[in-house]
Amino acid sequence: MISVAVIGSTGYAGSALVRLLNNHPNVNKVYASSHSYSSRSYSDIYPNFRNRFDEECLDVDIKELTKKSDVIFLCLPHSISSYQVDDEVLKKCVVIDLGADYRLKDVETYKSWYKSDHGSPQLIADSVYGLSELYRDEIASAKLIANPGCYTTCAILVAHPLLSENLIEKSPIIIDAKSGVSGAGRSEKLDLLYCEVNESIKPYGVTTHRHTPEIEQQLSLSSSKGKNSTGIKVTFTPHLVPMNRGILCSVYGTLKKGVTENEVEQSYKKWYSNEYFIRLLKKGELPQTRWVANSNYCDINFVIDWRTNQVIAFGALDNLIKGASGQAVQNMNIVFGFREGSGLEELSPFPM
Amino acid sequence: MISVAVIGSTGYAGSALVRLLNNHPNVNKVYASSHSYSSRSYSDIYPNFRNRFDEECLDVDIKELTKKSDVIFLCLPHSISSYQVDDEVLKKCVVIDLGADYRLKDVETYKSWYKSDHGSPQLIADSVYGLSELYRDEIASAKLIANPGCYTTCAILVAHPLLSENLIEKSPIIIDAKSGVSGAGRSEKLDLLYCEVNESIKPYGVTTHRHTPEIEQQLSLSSSKGKNSTGIKVTFTPHLVPMNRGILCSVYGTLKKGVTENEVEQSYKKWYSNEYFIRLLKKGELPQTRWVANSNYCDINFVIDWRTNQVIAFGALDNLIKGASGQAVQNMNIVFGFREGSGLEELSPFPM
Amino acid sequence: MISVAVIGSTGYAGSALVRLLNNHPNVNKVYASSHSYSSRSYSDIYPNFRNRFDEECLDVDIKELTKKSDVIFLCLPHSISSYQVDDEVLKKCVVIDLGADYRLKDVETYKSWYKSDHGSPQLIADSVYGLSELYRDEIASAKLIANPGCYTTCAILVAHPLLSENLIEKSPIIIDAKSGVSGAGRSEKLDLLYCEVNESIKPYGVTTHRHTPEIEQQLSLSSSKGKNSTGIKVTFTPHLVPMNRGILCSVYGTLKKGVTENEVEQSYKKWYSNEYFIRLLKKGELPQTRWVANSNYCDINFVIDWRTNQVIAFGALDNLIKGASGQAVQNMNIVFGFREGSGLEELSPFPM
Amino acid sequence: MISVAVIGSTGYAGSALVRLLNNHPNVNKVYASSHSYSSRSYSDIYPNFRNRFDEECLDVDIKELTKKSDVIFLCLPHSISSYQVDDEVLKKCVVIDLGADYRLKDVETYKSWYKSDHGSPQLIADSVYGLSELYRDEIASAKLIANPGCYTTCAILVAHPLLSENLIEKSPIIIDAKSGVSGAGRSEKLDLLYCEVNESIKPYGVTTHRHTPEIEQQLSLSSSKGKNSTGIKVTFTPHLVPMNRGILCSVYGTLKKGVTENEVEQSYKKWYSNEYFIRLLKKGELPQTRWVANSNYCDINFVIDWRTNQVIAFGALDNLIKGASGQAVQNMNIVFGFREGSGLEELSPFPM
Repeated sequence: MISVAVIGSTGYAGSALVRLLNNHPNVNKVYASSHSYSSRSYSDIYPNFRNRFDEECLDVDIKELTKKSDVIFLCLPHSISSYQVDDEVLKKCVVIDLGADYRLKDVETYKSWYKSDHGSPQLIADSVYGLSELYRDEIASAKLIANPGCYTTCAILVAHPLLSENLIEKSPIIIDAKSGVSGAGRSEKLDLLYCEVNESIKPYGVTTHRHTPEIEQQLSLSSSKGKNSTGIKVTFTPHLVPMNRGILCSVYGTLKKGVTENEVEQSYKKWYSNEYFIRLLKKGELPQTRWVANSNYCDINFVIDWRTNQVIAFGALDNLIKGASGQAVQNMNIVFGFREGSGLEELSPFPM
Repeated sequence: MISVAVIGSTGYAGSALVRLLNNHPNVNKVYASSHSYSSRSYSDIYPNFRNRFDEECLDVDIKELTKKSDVIFLCLPHSISSYQVDDEVLKKCVVIDLGADYRLKDVETYKSWYKSDHGSPQLIADSVYGLSELYRDEIASAKLIANPGCYTTCAILVAHPLLSENLIEKSPIIIDAKSGVSGAGRSEKLDLLYCEVNESIKPYGVTTHRHTPEIEQQLSLSSSKGKNSTGIKVTFTPHLVPMNRGILCSVYGTLKKGVTENEVEQSYKKWYSNEYFIRLLKKGELPQTRWVANSNYCDINFVIDWRTNQVIAFGALDNLIKGASGQAVQNMNIVFGFREGSGLEELSPFPM
Repeated sequence: MISVAVIGSTGYAGSALVRLLNNHPNVNKVYASSHSYSSRSYSDIYPNFRNRFDEECLDVDIKELTKKSDVIFLCLPHSISSYQVDDEVLKKCVVIDLGADYRLKDVETYKSWYKSDHGSPQLIADSVYGLSELYRDEIASAKLIANPGCYTTCAILVAHPLLSENLIEKSPIIIDAKSGVSGAGRSEKLDLLYCEVNESIKPYGVTTHRHTPEIEQQLSLSSSKGKNSTGIKVTFTPHLVPMNRGILCSVYGTLKKGVTENEVEQSYKKWYSNEYFIRLLKKGELPQTRWVANSNYCDINFVIDWRTNQVIAFGALDNLIKGASGQAVQNMNIVFGFREGSGLEELSPFPM
Repeated sequence: MISVAVIGSTGYAGSALVRLLNNHPNVNKVYASSHSYSSRSYSDIYPNFRNRFDEECLDVDIKELTKKSDVIFLCLPHSISSYQVDDEVLKKCVVIDLGADYRLKDVETYKSWYKSDHGSPQLIADSVYGLSELYRDEIASAKLIANPGCYTTCAILVAHPLLSENLIEKSPIIIDAKSGVSGAGRSEKLDLLYCEVNESIKPYGVTTHRHTPEIEQQLSLSSSKGKNSTGIKVTFTPHLVPMNRGILCSVYGTLKKGVTENEVEQSYKKWYSNEYFIRLLKKGELPQTRWVANSNYCDINFVIDWRTNQVIAFGALDNLIKGASGQAVQNMNIVFGFREGSGLEELSPFPM
């Protein structure tokens, strides 16, 4: 049994994490820390926790939290995490950062996309990218895990086998992504009001969304099998959909000459048929966010448009679970040798 | 460990039940039976179950199911259950009927509200009304449990202490109820189409809703403490709200002369302060369906309008869980001596 | 042709008003004034107006606006209007206030419910309550019109005939009201975020909502036929429903002895059968917000519960139209002798 | 003033058309014809029409309707229209078909995508494709107008300038489209139930959607300037979004070498800057369905991703208005020489 702390526990992802950790069979104590709600009862902020987790939120004091925790989860705005973590922290605890600060290996790329300084660039090299299915071995022995973004988890899982098995051209790769509103966080912005979001769909962050370099970094690795990791550029276009949860990525790639449908199918099977949290759908079935909402699953399938030589591959996941808190718990399970699905076996309620 | 069967497993309530039972620590086998989808894989009908419950739906053959089950749950349209259950079935299994057939003690009342015949009126007397918090002792030794309706569970839990402690007049009692759409079931009706329900609220079944006599039967018992059980009539008005899940009941009663706020508060504490699944909110907090959705909780609170001498009491629950499948599992737990919260400890995901 | 100004034009009600006025056949010029968005193009704030009303928002300077306008509409937070209007303004323009400042005849009642001072109590006596159907004659010659609240318009229209014709007891009168989210305005509050409102229903402002004294003032007048106007107290309970627009009021009253269904029906016919914007539904039909959304209609019908002697009367309207901007235009039409439906004949789009 | 008939008037598109025609200043009589609801009052089926269009639905008898109508609108399932129209009908009336039967010039393509026979292939050649902005001159003198599909109107308007001005490669062209639920019609299907659609997004009809050949036919014409019209194939992927109305098309094309942002901008200006119903947004603004819902506008803009050399162009429209009934009325206006915006000047209500 371990003790865990969540810093930044009162956003949507933090709250989803506190919920999962409270139900986790190998966790005996959860500390919820929050800058905004320090010393208020957690169930006052999220009344779904009434009678179940009524403890007060602790101050954000990472040194103090390392004394009593085995793992620290960080759910903070970008750049802030990079000033919280240091060697002293990492000596005492495993750190799983749900933010962006340790995802990009090149700190200049980070600075240019995030328009921020980075407080601990020296830690980046030893941090591990926490996409559980692709980096399981490295995660097992990691001290600092950079949990992937929501869009990126979905986009990478969908595109990785196609590039890794050399089935599509390196360009163009179009990732048309759709997300529920919780991905934008719990902040009091005009654009997030019910009446502004409801009954409308819109693109946003076109060509500028910060998940782009993360997707490119990983897909470049997929494409080059670990050697030289540049080369892949993607056109990534997110859209906001009037629903609470869920991400759907529609990925378009041009098939290389002679590639068969069977080869595409086998590429997915090779990578994912033994993965508990990836479900490859039967031919003709397509991912829908409702079947993965509130679960840690990512549903994947593809269709080939032979008329245009495009493979159209789809992935669906819950942005707050497999795209954030669920994958963070999955990584914790890997580090501590718990069963990988431990605490994550909830099925999607339906209708949700 | 027990084995269970769900007959009528492919409606929304049945499906919520199959989900709970699959995660129940004391259940080792679930049989899903369905008239409409017999021999089709359960996860084809509800793809949230993919890789987790892919078994074929069985025919509706209650005699066959009694051979391998310890409990049989019935999720059938009204009147059909009453032709399925008989003494032979009850000798072999506990039956928990999520439908209406055994809820009303007076079969003539049943026939008049449901416009149907009843196939086993002789079984009504020994059946137990499965409102877990009020009939725990009887449920523990019951063979046939009539699981309450969704509106009725909420309305009765809210109004019971007020009547039982003699705090409000017997008339008028107004129950203005609001329900999400899943309460109407998974049937292909024009009125249930997305575009017909979305962005609108409407009353329906005004003065004719079949949950009315069930509420009246129980509140009459509350009022008379088990002696003569008539007397209470309620004005029950359901409304359809554009959301998937949840019921909110707003109950209006006229305070008897001299009743104090403290007496009202104590009435709720007396009945519910030790109940795990009922959460009495702090003064000033009001129930909202989002904090109970997908959980087995019923949140309750009240406000007194001293200007008009009305107590306005509110209850919120999930129509498919505490209003149907969750309470059915709670009743199963009581019968078999499992911990009452076993398999039911899921917190509401938020945002859901 | 007249010129009009809207002060506070960038909230939801203000914007609905600007839209109606731009399409009004008797209006040749609309001035949009806004404190928050002064000098920004109106269509930048509300892009639905692109190419149609791109003018810059003017400062809030009522004296300046009186020079060029025949009517000034005020869409301001409560108490602010009362400091804007004075005799000089009223000499030059008709003022239609969509806020609360001139609705309550008793300034002490105003201060006690609104916790605010009032800047021009001397103007209250000559102001006219702008519920068009009930005060048409007074409105015709008014200089200062207090446009009713959204809930109040609906509640009063539903209950007025019953009290005016002496068909129900004076107590208890229960008004259980449900509103879409736009009624809460366009402000950046946590409770109005999409993820906080979506998929949930909640009561709010129970026993304290400020529309209560307004409803009571008017229903007291209904009840006493203009003589002594106190006596009616109502239990008014608003609920927030996950939809953009629409109000549904469910009004419960106890029938006086001997009252027949025909008498109830005739009371509605007497008051409303010649009203263009009130539609009395056929027996068995019940109001739904979808059929009135984005129109100036109020749909009304009732059911009698003979078992409990309650009349349950329902009204549905669009909170931003008949509950605010549409009724304001209707009042303008009355004042200027335009056809009452002028500029207001839009039917609800469906599905909306 | 003209008289008009709508055959198939009780679907969502038909109903939107009846609404527009009832408010049209040049239309003095609307006949609503319906197979399913013959002889029932129109406002019984769509109660938003109460007191405004209560007439009975007429039988579907096109010959009878030609006697009293100047225009006949057909809103029928595919292939049925092709058996209704003949030379005799066209001698008496202008026919505007909102269905698919006369859209594809090649009847074999029609048969292969629609899996249906065609009842009047000899009429196809003289029919005019009713995309108002591109075929205004031909429409003006047409007798039979094939009103475009909802997705196709949006996709073609977005992609046409890019191909016509030779700015993008002919392949790949990706059209990732998102639609509200009303596009699927008012039919009692499980997949259209509120609880099945709400809170989820899904792709459907991938590589098989019937709007594909229509888009390809038109974009081939765009590309070849009227000479040889094949060559363009598109990857068209529709998605279902949980909202009532609206279509958003995200179109991806590879820029030809040397093409500048200014050239892209000028291509749109050349084609659309004088078009009343097309609004080219300012740089940095992106189309959102909420700003066009319930209007006849199509909002368009683009972003260039120089890193990947893709132009990403977006269009948003209301599937029932510019994508169906509004464009049909626009075409009627062109034929009869009415002002093109006549009866179509409604702005989007917001929030809607």
